[in-house]
Amino acid sequence: MPDNLLVAQSGGPTAVINSSICGIVTEALQRGKIRSIYGAINGILGVLTEDLVDLRKEDPDVLWNLRRTPSAALGSCRYKLGEREYTRILEVLAAHEIGYFLYAGGNDSMDTAHKVAKLAAEKRLDMRVIGVPKTVDNDLMVTDHCPGYGSVARFNAIAARDSSLDTEAIYTSDTIKIIETMGRDAGWITASTALASGNGLGPNLIYLPERPFIPDQFLADVKTINERTGRVVIAVCEGLKDESGEFVKASHKGLDTDSFGHAQLGGVGDYLVSLVSEKLKIKARFDKPGTIQRVSMQCASTVDLEEAYRVGQIAMSKAAEGESDKMVTIIRTHSNPYESETGLVDLIEVALKTRKVPDAYINKEANFVTQEFLDYASPLIGEPLPPYARLKKDRIEKVLPNFV
Amino acid sequence: MPDNLLVAQSGGPTAVINSSICGIVTEALQRGKIRSIYGAINGILGVLTEDLVDLRKEDPDVLWNLRRTPSAALGSCRYKLGEREYTRILEVLAAHEIGYFLYAGGNDSMDTAHKVAKLAAEKRLDMRVIGVPKTVDNDLMVTDHCPGYGSVARFNAIAARDSSLDTEAIYTSDTIKIIETMGRDAGWITASTALASGNGLGPNLIYLPERPFIPDQFLADVKTINERTGRVVIAVCEGLKDESGEFVKASHKGLDTDSFGHAQLGGVGDYLVSLVSEKLKIKARFDKPGTIQRVSMQCASTVDLEEAYRVGQIAMSKAAEGESDKMVTIIRTHSNPYESETGLVDLIEVALKTRKVPDAYINKEANFVTQEFLDYASPLIGEPLPPYARLKKDRIEKVLPNFV
Repeated sequence: MPDNLLVAQSGGPTAVINSSICGIVTEALQRGKIRSIYGAINGILGVLTEDLVDLRKEDPDVLWNLRRTPSAALGSCRYKLGEREYTRILEVLAAHEIGYFLYAGGNDSMDTAHKVAKLAAEKRLDMRVIGVPKTVDNDLMVTDHCPGYGSVARFNAIAARDSSLDTEAIYTSDTIKIIETMGRDAGWITASTALASGNGLGPNLIYLPERPFIPDQFLADVKTINERTGRVVIAVCEGLKDESGEFVKASHKGLDTDSFGHAQLGGVGDYLVSLVSEKLKIKARFDKPGTIQRVSMQCASTVDLEEAYRVGQIAMSKAAEGESDKMVTIIRTHSNPYESETGLVDLIEVALKTRKVPDAYINKEANFVTQEFLDYASPLIGEPLPPYARLKKDRIEKVLPNFV
Repeated sequence: MPDNLLVAQSGGPTAVINSSICGIVTEALQRGKIRSIYGAINGILGVLTEDLVDLRKEDPDVLWNLRRTPSAALGSCRYKLGEREYTRILEVLAAHEIGYFLYAGGNDSMDTAHKVAKLAAEKRLDMRVIGVPKTVDNDLMVTDHCPGYGSVARFNAIAARDSSLDTEAIYTSDTIKIIETMGRDAGWITASTALASGNGLGPNLIYLPERPFIPDQFLADVKTINERTGRVVIAVCEGLKDESGEFVKASHKGLDTDSFGHAQLGGVGDYLVSLVSEKLKIKARFDKPGTIQRVSMQCASTVDLEEAYRVGQIAMSKAAEGESDKMVTIIRTHSNPYESETGLVDLIEVALKTRKVPDAYINKEANFVTQEFLDYASPLIGEPLPPYARLKKDRIEKVLPNFV
């Protein structure tokens, strides 16, 4: 049978997808039956254009250091495939005697992997296709969570804590802070800002795309908290939608959709700053870490790095054992202390599907997460956040009349 | 003579201003002649309202851990003072027998400190006033650099490197990346993104407010680089101005000015995304880390943390030795390896003045920094950035006709 391996990466980069590649390649190098180890440049685009590299020629130290290198070392893509493309992909895989095709990505990529597996079976090609879960969006079905999520969650927990500490210090001039996080269809990333909570820090309000965004309710929430504490920190998702299901603030320009037809989002933070300024007459500003949040090795979760490596390793070993048309999943086996193991699921069960934040994780006011969410997400970000000093601020007695 | 100390923090929070407070308090605790150690809540506002805390009552461990806690633990402010306020401030300082007033802040705060010192002298109060330099903007005169800058520079160097690695991976769908950094009047922060350079990473173009922003030139720059490499990463300053001296994209709403009359900036990234999309028909997106950049302990520079502590210590000891109406400066005594010592400058020399990025640090095309800037800024960010793995990507031979 064909005994070459082809590995490719797809969709948005993450802090840990290279750790998965390292896991795959390390496992392949240890298995005698794998001959050549190829990487496709820019995901499925590299397969289409036969732009493949020989990973056996890489320095072993460099391969090993992929575990500490964010983004996607082989390059990634977002590319919609038609029938012609699938035919070509199978030709390329056959021409290079690929017996194992491992594709790391999200729900679009799992659909691609499934179609490749199906077509290979129809053409009676002896090839195993395994999907490696990867997405900061944490929206793949079946798996407890997705590699990439723990790290973006840690970044946002730290960023929200820092940003709220900033607001606490300077609220007499900058009173309202809005943090816009990534997240197209699901609010997992935005929810993770709640992991900053404790000691009076972190966001006061969190709005997820799982609930319609109602401006008047938002303004009432902000007003209430501002009257109580004199400052408000708010985390919002770039994919917020209004009651009619329209993105709260999406660009409708032609260029701003990707090849899957997804609108390019962003602009929610800016919009909410204007809303607060105009309606409440309070000064607001927004932070939008953008792509920085998904590729921060500085904030990577040790749990996430380790699991990303492990799903890569398992994908390779399961393919070698003959499994195909499957994605590796993470199964939480114990909560406190956190423990996990891996499983397999049919690609068709995850392809193109989106796992939203469940109702149990969102409070009834639709403006924060529940303790259940915190219990779910806390172990995924690795070590506890580094502690910060908090002064007790023992007031001294005033001796003068008030200044008016 | 009055033998109480009052310390206060002002202006935008930073990763290291609490390290300066720790330096001041640690030094004060070691000097027998200081009786009470007070902190003003929210800077000069706390002085006006007599909202003072007793720092001798804080847990020594908490005080020591301020060195690793970002933002401004005593609270900060931006508040414009008039004659009435200065009179009140002197009353409060006298009523609490303040012999030492140490104020950490930027050029507005140094003006405040100077006026307090002058008024105290006029009223023949026995009081020493020392300014402790603090600003991520790095725009104070005389001092080689400002505590706070090294850390925001390290954050932006890491963020720009990560963000460019992201663009390198996903450029086939997201081609142009714009990173909007802080910086009202000077481009020091934006320039620091260049410290990400090397190994093909970091920004390709950098635009500073020291040069007028010319949209057509910008578009030509972007087009040239995109045609050569297929992707462009651009760092821009929120304070960019056009040829007529107007902010490229400032909000002119009434709420969006602070009490010093400074316009609230931001929106440049969003504007440039539109410009690129409309004029070049290329997809662009922007990252705007906002306030997160200035309070990231995760990315704090060890050099910056240490120097911030030291300027606090020195401010206290110089005040105790009888100096007044001065600001502590940092003097670079050796470049490679980097070494520094502290000096003193009259507050009037730094009050309200702004040090721009000098011509020698900006290239003649006005779209990047020079090696001289890199030599200046590199030591300030502390340890070298953690290395990332770079695959050599040895292509394998194509065996099929091209896919068209």
